[in-house]
Amino acid sequence: MLLLRDFAQVASPAGRRAPLRGAELGAVDVVEDAYVLVDAGTIADVGRMRDLKPLGAAVEERSFAGRCAVPGLVDCHTHPAFGGDRVEEFSLRAGGASYEELHAAGGGILSTVRATRAAGEDGLRDAVRRHAAWMRSHGTTTFEGKSGYGLDRDTELASLRAVRDAGGVPTWLGAHAVPPELDGDADAYLDVALAEVLPEAAKLAEAADVFLERGAFDAAQARRYLTACRDAGLSLRLHGDQFTEQGAIPLAIELGARSVDHLEATGDAGVRALAGSDVVGVLLPASALFLGRPMPPGRALVDAGAAIALATDFNPGSSFTESLPLVCSLAATQLKLSPAESLAAVTVNAAHVLQRSDRIGRIAPGYRADLAILDAPDWRYLAYHLGERPVALPASELA
Amino acid sequence: MLLLRDFAQVASPAGRRAPLRGAELGAVDVVEDAYVLVDAGTIADVGRMRDLKPLGAAVEERSFAGRCAVPGLVDCHTHPAFGGDRVEEFSLRAGGASYEELHAAGGGILSTVRATRAAGEDGLRDAVRRHAAWMRSHGTTTFEGKSGYGLDRDTELASLRAVRDAGGVPTWLGAHAVPPELDGDADAYLDVALAEVLPEAAKLAEAADVFLERGAFDAAQARRYLTACRDAGLSLRLHGDQFTEQGAIPLAIELGARSVDHLEATGDAGVRALAGSDVVGVLLPASALFLGRPMPPGRALVDAGAAIALATDFNPGSSFTESLPLVCSLAATQLKLSPAESLAAVTVNAAHVLQRSDRIGRIAPGYRADLAILDAPDWRYLAYHLGERPVALPASELA
Repeated sequence: MLLLRDFAQVASPAGRRAPLRGAELGAVDVVEDAYVLVDAGTIADVGRMRDLKPLGAAVEERSFAGRCAVPGLVDCHTHPAFGGDRVEEFSLRAGGASYEELHAAGGGILSTVRATRAAGEDGLRDAVRRHAAWMRSHGTTTFEGKSGYGLDRDTELASLRAVRDAGGVPTWLGAHAVPPELDGDADAYLDVALAEVLPEAAKLAEAADVFLERGAFDAAQARRYLTACRDAGLSLRLHGDQFTEQGAIPLAIELGARSVDHLEATGDAGVRALAGSDVVGVLLPASALFLGRPMPPGRALVDAGAAIALATDFNPGSSFTESLPLVCSLAATQLKLSPAESLAAVTVNAAHVLQRSDRIGRIAPGYRADLAILDAPDWRYLAYHLGERPVALPASELA
Repeated sequence: MLLLRDFAQVASPAGRRAPLRGAELGAVDVVEDAYVLVDAGTIADVGRMRDLKPLGAAVEERSFAGRCAVPGLVDCHTHPAFGGDRVEEFSLRAGGASYEELHAAGGGILSTVRATRAAGEDGLRDAVRRHAAWMRSHGTTTFEGKSGYGLDRDTELASLRAVRDAGGVPTWLGAHAVPPELDGDADAYLDVALAEVLPEAAKLAEAADVFLERGAFDAAQARRYLTACRDAGLSLRLHGDQFTEQGAIPLAIELGARSVDHLEATGDAGVRALAGSDVVGVLLPASALFLGRPMPPGRALVDAGAAIALATDFNPGSSFTESLPLVCSLAATQLKLSPAESLAAVTVNAAHVLQRSDRIGRIAPGYRADLAILDAPDWRYLAYHLGERPVALPASELA
């Protein structure tokens, strides 16, 4: 047993349900002057110091005076398996070039595909490990990681293994872009991907994902890809409504997807449809910031009753950040979400997207003892203090 | 002598001039596979490793393989002398309340004035030291710090001493707001401030600053305050055009101010006037982000030929961030400034605002050996990697 004591505050999304939506999304249990009791990596008890009962001499104690604990952060949308970087493209875009223009000019995703294929299995493993360490240094204790910069059998499978080996939750983003050797023939690419990659990817990944967008895959192609992946046992995710509405939300609902992610271009009808469904809207405000594009309609989605999560979209081209606290700051200042709503969106609701909300995303008895520790007097510094960097304290370090 | 060796890149604004503007603003000298030779805290030489001449045995060496150096960052606009925080207000604003509404409701600056007066001299000293350590943890080696949350003689002077004692450059922001006991009578407040505080503040501060804005001080009051401060030997700064244009730019030019800061509301005429002057425009995009307001016209100012600097505006109410790298990321993504332009804006041009550009803001012989070290292969990660946290390596640690 391990007693983590003297926290200024321990804050956790209230209740036991997932995903949270509507008024429940903003309900946070805050315990002041608190302790967390951990037994073999699982939370045994949470309470106020003054209510702490005598514990046996075998209990190890650690004091966290002046600090706050929130659940270890859950990043449910990242692209960590890549080689190289896109700093040159970033610098050009700062001078005015658009994402589509850079993509058309041979930059964009395909430049990362080249670098990722060149990295090799060891290079990819090193890259994902490094990126996972970056995430942890911002308080993330669980991350999803997508493939999608290989677009060939070996590199896609190596990407999934690299994510798994770094402790992440692998998602096969086989339909991220059409590889350069197929010269824009998306259907021909899907023929190969579904025949040759899916059977192996289904053994490594938990979910499949598709980039449904003008210039990538259309709704019919996305349906074909996702249906085949569902039949192979994978749960489903979609990149949708990033630049234009191409039917991602209806398709996600029709196929029973876990989530539809991005939604910067989602209009009122999409907001209403999502709110009436079980699909989680994953918002990626750092990506919108990075590209200098409109923000997703976070407030409208929450007010309509949609279940939302927040994630970094960590990737080299459109969101080179691994900081979920920064995402919470953007949610507060750009999406008009309260710190409480953001907390649920980066913990319990993100865990729900990853099908783990029974074990992670809350500080409550029975949950895994994954914590993020803020050196601050109030847990809401998570969003308030731009650049705040909580320390990840995963259960694996609390054995 | 101290040899800092094996840098992947050493990047510094080019030339010797300050402030940089126009095409010069984007000119960066980048030395690949580089060394920096330091003699008693001053840069003696910069060059490529292959050109390094044999050094005597007395030279200590430190390797920075895989890392980059830029000049230690200079934050020329911060408000670090305050008590308390504004996390409650932040959380309310995330729910939709405006800055002016919160101010009118008794939140805003005056809530921090109460907490700052209550902090006492020791509390203020501790607070500024803590905030200075935060800044350093993001690569800042020189910071300006304003008073302005005391608004009475003792607390204003204690604020200036706290900034000085933490190693900052003190600015007397005597005209930040009208203190609550004067019930909105700005002229009566200036009578007291100029008669009773200015004589002592002039001995502690290097500059004076005023918040010229509807609801704070009007142009006539700002002129009166600044003229008196100039006569007392202080250089001049202005908070101007944050919410509305109230004549800050013409006044800054007329009085020969070092800078006019904010400029979110500056229109074309203001851009042209500033570009034709010696006044530096200090842009604070983190403040605009934090308040969810329009960004300042950074690209237009640079294209018109204005000298600009970038700063955090660190303060508890409208910009709770001490990260200049984050400001550089915002400059790239929101203001359309290249990483090179941002680098000059947070080094040499910021140093010019603080009248120190002969000694800091460049990595070149004769400059103080203040560095910021990036754990990255390219110095442009300073802006590219959202949440990048360079390590400050000030000359005081290179003795």
